[in-house]
Amino acid sequence: MVLAKKYVLVKEFDGFPNDENIELQDEELPALTDDEVLFEAVYLSVDPYMRVFPIPIGSVMIGTQVAKVVESNNEDYAAGDMYVANFGWRTHTIANPSNNTELNIKKIPELGDLSPSLALGAAGMPGETAYLALVHIGRPQEGETVVVTAAAGAVGSVVGQIANIRECTTIGYAGTDAKVAWLKEIGFTYAYNYKTCDISESLKESAPNGVDIYYDNVGGHVAGKIVNNHMNVRGRVACVGSISSYNKGTEEGPYPFGHVLFKRLTMKGFIHFDEKPVDTQKANAQLIDWIHEGKIKVREHVVGGFSQMREAFYGLFKGENVGKAVVKV
Amino acid sequence: MVLAKKYVLVKEFDGFPNDENIELQDEELPALTDDEVLFEAVYLSVDPYMRVFPIPIGSVMIGTQVAKVVESNNEDYAAGDMYVANFGWRTHTIANPSNNTELNIKKIPELGDLSPSLALGAAGMPGETAYLALVHIGRPQEGETVVVTAAAGAVGSVVGQIANIRECTTIGYAGTDAKVAWLKEIGFTYAYNYKTCDISESLKESAPNGVDIYYDNVGGHVAGKIVNNHMNVRGRVACVGSISSYNKGTEEGPYPFGHVLFKRLTMKGFIHFDEKPVDTQKANAQLIDWIHEGKIKVREHVVGGFSQMREAFYGLFKGENVGKAVVKV
Repeated sequence: MVLAKKYVLVKEFDGFPNDENIELQDEELPALTDDEVLFEAVYLSVDPYMRVFPIPIGSVMIGTQVAKVVESNNEDYAAGDMYVANFGWRTHTIANPSNNTELNIKKIPELGDLSPSLALGAAGMPGETAYLALVHIGRPQEGETVVVTAAAGAVGSVVGQIANIRECTTIGYAGTDAKVAWLKEIGFTYAYNYKTCDISESLKESAPNGVDIYYDNVGGHVAGKIVNNHMNVRGRVACVGSISSYNKGTEEGPYPFGHVLFKRLTMKGFIHFDEKPVDTQKANAQLIDWIHEGKIKVREHVVGGFSQMREAFYGLFKGENVGKAVVKV
Repeated sequence: MVLAKKYVLVKEFDGFPNDENIELQDEELPALTDDEVLFEAVYLSVDPYMRVFPIPIGSVMIGTQVAKVVESNNEDYAAGDMYVANFGWRTHTIANPSNNTELNIKKIPELGDLSPSLALGAAGMPGETAYLALVHIGRPQEGETVVVTAAAGAVGSVVGQIANIRECTTIGYAGTDAKVAWLKEIGFTYAYNYKTCDISESLKESAPNGVDIYYDNVGGHVAGKIVNNHMNVRGRVACVGSISSYNKGTEEGPYPFGHVLFKRLTMKGFIHFDEKPVDTQKANAQLIDWIHEGKIKVREHVVGGFSQMREAFYGLFKGENVGKAVVKV
């Protein structure tokens, strides 16, 4: 018998998440039946979307993990093999992969000597999100100017580096000087601390001819200023994250509709789960190549121990982490 | 010698336009030289964009007119023929059409027994705007729900009727009860006076399953409420007018970025002059067919006399006119 640990949403989020919302619980797992597989978490992802994706009270917190097969009654699954799956915040999971598509159990991509944890970051959902929203919505052309917010995060840091590969001018905003320093290190043309700079002044310096693509991970006033005042005619705005509103409601300011009209902007929302497997796989393969080639540099904020899941999650909203936050069991 | 009358912008607009901004002046026109043509205005258009399109002080007010050739030194232009051109607010214009593309001098479309003034409305720029932004940005499918604001205007009234032809549920907002009555008369499924209804309550009645397409002619709070609270997943928002902001600045409210993200909306700005002639001509021909077939009903607000240009223009912002406002010389 295996004793699993899991985190359960016990109280609806309201403001910043805390231990009253999420409870650590034990669960005795039954013996495996035919075709079932027992997986053990190796790395777990914490992502901002977990704060806002609606799930019923009493559910295990949702999320993706890198998991290892520890026992198998399924001939397609061998002990020791690594998978990526939406098992949520739990140490052990029993599933029959043959008849379960919801958990989206996929073989971990071929990473060579890279850490398997990258399958939760630059070589996983966040990297694919960076790639697909930038390429499909932003359509970056050589010489264009790309602005990205939450630029030191799992998604933003990859967005900037792909835009660099596409020979764009890249401007990143992040919330600490340490993050800004790292952004410059990984090749952003300009990087600013949005908490201490004036957005308009910084864009006068870095984008004197205007912004062609704004990759929005934050929403709120920062997005409002960029979209309302700095976009070029026929600019593109990818709305991919809105972390400014997740814990404290939506900020208010001048509506952007008139600017969308006069600048003939295209603004489009993006959620990874809408994407076709053929596209995510192509993006994933390209990202792994770029990481191997050193064209995309990756930084992870690795938190030790399943017991630290909640702290790792809260940390996303404190803005302290640089790079992708993962928990190593 | 011909004495032309023209209206000149003499003071930058600030708030509602008035006679301090626009001055009626006389101009003595010279004799025609080789290849030149003298045109005389028959109908002139007044449109909201004239309030916001930037022109230098001292310029003739911009705009489109239906004009008749009265004298011609150009073998391609015969006295009596009717043209549509961007001559601005003037009674008489001398131009050499052979080397002038800026004035966009085009033969009036074949209208049969319809009034030539329609070439400034449903069979002209406003109608083409209605058609192209609805079809290219909105992509209406049978059974979808389409909301349009300033629905009794030159553009909005055509938008709703095209959406009806496409077998959509159509919901129009206008600013007087008389306009609302007319919208119901021309086939809008639902019509509301936005000044006296609650937007959200009205959409609970008319769009209980959400809005697929929002055709925005107004911006501001009305647009904010519809976009932030009533769109369906993968909804489309066409930003075509922003009349709420033209005279008094942009209204403020919750930013829509998070809603664009979570609903994966597409929001796109539209200005007619970006469109390819092949598309505007196709739209124009289709519109004229529909008008002849009675599928698109047209109403005009015809103001008599060139001396009334300013009043006709101010009227656009008083919200009194139903249908397309034109001035008959």
